[in-house]
Amino acid sequence: MQYRCEVYIRPRADILDPQGDAVNNALANLNFQGVSEVKVGKYLTLLLESDGQSAAEEQLDKMCQTLLANPIIEDYEMKVTEA
Amino acid sequence: MQYRCEVYIRPRADILDPQGDAVNNALANLNFQGVSEVKVGKYLTLLLESDGQSAAEEQLDKMCQTLLANPIIEDYEMKVTEA
Repeated sequence: MQYRCEVYIRPRADILDPQGDAVNNALANLNFQGVSEVKVGKYLTLLLESDGQSAAEEQLDKMCQTLLANPIIEDYEMKVTEA
Repeated sequence: MQYRCEVYIRPRADILDPQGDAVNNALANLNFQGVSEVKVGKYLTLLLESDGQSAAEEQLDKMCQTLLANPIIEDYEMKVTEA
């Protein structure tokens, strides 16, 4: 069966995020007020052919650990739904 | 009130996504099978001080249009919840 997978990757809370700071400053320069704690991460979507929901989740988690995310400096969440 | 905002940005369906293709190939090289249609986008989180939910959503939408996303080549979705 085919599964639609989404992965949300963000810098860990205790890690500096210069890209987020840059966006924060840019928003302030554009007169957007009241913005704080901007964090910039990655959003991946993919289709995965797998035997079942839990197998798909396991595979996706392995992909995250190996390639998609850097678990030392990033947190990630996954969403797997039948396509 | 303070709102926790999430923005999911992804390349539009009809736009080439070379970064997604690269990840697709890398996954294949690492022997992950059955993966297709990888798309790489951005995942932003921020805190926003605003008068109410709808005002916050409107402000965030303006930020997306102006700076966070490129509406010509990217689609975006937003999630705004009370912090």
